[in-house]
Amino acid sequence: MAIWRIINMDKLTLDKIDDFLRGTAFLGTGGGGNPYVGGLMLRQELEKGFEPKLIKGDEVGDDDLILPIANMGAPTVLVEKLPNAKSAVKALRKMEELMGKKATALIAAEAGGINGTLPFIVSAYTGLPVIDADGMGRAFPELQMCTFGVYGVNCSPVIVRDEKDNEMVVDAENNHASEMFARVICMQMGTKSEICLYPMTGKQMKETSVHHTVTLAYEIGKSIGDARVKGTDPLEGIVDYFKNSFDKRFCKLLFQGKVTDLLRETTDGWARGEVKITSLTDPNDSILVKLQNEFLIALKDGKPLAMVPDLICLVDLENAEPITAEDVRYGQRVNVIGVSTPPNMRTKAALDTFGPVPFKVYDKFIPIEEIK
Amino acid sequence: MAIWRIINMDKLTLDKIDDFLRGTAFLGTGGGGNPYVGGLMLRQELEKGFEPKLIKGDEVGDDDLILPIANMGAPTVLVEKLPNAKSAVKALRKMEELMGKKATALIAAEAGGINGTLPFIVSAYTGLPVIDADGMGRAFPELQMCTFGVYGVNCSPVIVRDEKDNEMVVDAENNHASEMFARVICMQMGTKSEICLYPMTGKQMKETSVHHTVTLAYEIGKSIGDARVKGTDPLEGIVDYFKNSFDKRFCKLLFQGKVTDLLRETTDGWARGEVKITSLTDPNDSILVKLQNEFLIALKDGKPLAMVPDLICLVDLENAEPITAEDVRYGQRVNVIGVSTPPNMRTKAALDTFGPVPFKVYDKFIPIEEIK
Repeated sequence: MAIWRIINMDKLTLDKIDDFLRGTAFLGTGGGGNPYVGGLMLRQELEKGFEPKLIKGDEVGDDDLILPIANMGAPTVLVEKLPNAKSAVKALRKMEELMGKKATALIAAEAGGINGTLPFIVSAYTGLPVIDADGMGRAFPELQMCTFGVYGVNCSPVIVRDEKDNEMVVDAENNHASEMFARVICMQMGTKSEICLYPMTGKQMKETSVHHTVTLAYEIGKSIGDARVKGTDPLEGIVDYFKNSFDKRFCKLLFQGKVTDLLRETTDGWARGEVKITSLTDPNDSILVKLQNEFLIALKDGKPLAMVPDLICLVDLENAEPITAEDVRYGQRVNVIGVSTPPNMRTKAALDTFGPVPFKVYDKFIPIEEIK
Repeated sequence: MAIWRIINMDKLTLDKIDDFLRGTAFLGTGGGGNPYVGGLMLRQELEKGFEPKLIKGDEVGDDDLILPIANMGAPTVLVEKLPNAKSAVKALRKMEELMGKKATALIAAEAGGINGTLPFIVSAYTGLPVIDADGMGRAFPELQMCTFGVYGVNCSPVIVRDEKDNEMVVDAENNHASEMFARVICMQMGTKSEICLYPMTGKQMKETSVHHTVTLAYEIGKSIGDARVKGTDPLEGIVDYFKNSFDKRFCKLLFQGKVTDLLRETTDGWARGEVKITSLTDPNDSILVKLQNEFLIALKDGKPLAMVPDLICLVDLENAEPITAEDVRYGQRVNVIGVSTPPNMRTKAALDTFGPVPFKVYDKFIPIEEIK
């Protein structure tokens, strides 16, 4: 059993990119947009000689301006209507203009999915370093579902842009209202927008972020990749990694089976649905995974196996490749993995924002490690 | 038969307000929001001693900043969710901030309905004069349906605000896109917003406006009021007024009858529907008036009697009080009056924006005076 430690991922290089992308897909818990397209964009920049710089949260000054940059929309749309790097850079520039200050560094709003990659692409255009942190250490469907907001950063102003240079500035009464206004605008843009939001100081970033999540994504992806190279079971690679990782996460195989029923619809600006997974050995043994962009809860006979904000990740049964919600297919054989989230994702304030109650999937949060 | 002339309405005083409101309701052609509430707000300011100043378009400098201010939303909602003067003033101030310049004067985006009154209310809070002009000389449901836009003024930026200080800045690729983005935001605000849009120079205002429409509203209202006082037929008062008014409009009684069928729904952010009006003497003789916020076309046996942008106005059969679309009731006895619009509302560019084709109610525009 390997002892994992923080790998010095100060540069995201071409040889690391596949592991990194696989890790962002895993942290996406089904959502956050398929990293494949973002990966192609990033690879193109790296091949042109771009050297992205990853810095730790404590490397920036307390008064520096830190800007999260992201794609907003339904993942089902994001695979067809591609991210637009120039639009993302314009969103950043517009926010700098509103703040009357140049940004010192970029940060991912969410580490999971395509939004784990986007800051590096914007970095290629701007030279700004990317901070090894994000606002959730995973992916979530709504803008207010973010530790930045939970711990006091204002989501507004939100710059919402598209590739046609439609540019909206949302300044809303609270973070939930910011989400609602940005969402209808995003839907009008075709359910895919580039956004810049939660403008914050270095101090706010240090206090409110989930740290080391870029490194975490890379290391998860590497644990799977390494197992494949060694010929060992990649599922064990993942479980071992989390148990021994720098922030000691709880990790557990929740279920093994094949997809026997699938409901997925793009509605109200989201991909919603549920996936039924049936045991390979017992046709009467099955679980249900509910999704709103991300996998929100895994239920067996109506009882939870894991729930938000803990991570519920579907990976391929053979090679442990993470499966995003829009790529789930009938008949797919999968492992369902549950992973605990860090303490600042489980406070009352955090759960009131992105726990099972606001998602309306369960009446209270039960940590994955307490579920028998 | 009286010969009408432009009355010196440089001040809108308490004794003129009822006539003015009645005229804005008439020009609203069923839409633009019921002027009653705006009238109460304005009356309150006048009673406190406010002296609004109405100026002619040529009284401002070519480089002055002229700002149209309006309420956006469905008229059916505007009678329940009231206009907010402070929010309108904040929209104005936000636009001044974006333009880097103070406004010299206000202008109504539409002379008809509540939006004919709103600039005077904002004037009470700011001291800014109101220009005797607007962007259509009536009311229209969509932001791009405006002579300002038809003749080259950019609708964006649009400030869209509500009473909770949610404030959005729309900067869209064209005027129709401005409408679409502002509309979804307005719907999210509860289908009622204060907006500031089409920021323009004095020169642009002079060249693109429909002029003298505040005076026109007052004089229409006065022609009805005077007839009531004199005991003459107010319907004749209206027809006579238009035939002899300063801009020589064609005016005609299209139909007389009672409302025998009524479909009205608030959908997609608009009040839509149709009104069937049946002759008082012949139950087989009826017309159909279609509406989207405003009355768009009057049809008899499928053939048009009048259509947008010409005015179709419903007034009470007895006292000629204008009836807004949300106040149409089953059994109401009405006169349906048609009035021609000025030449700059009937150019190809104008008809391409707000003629019967974009409204999808008829395949070509036929001027009311050419319909037998």
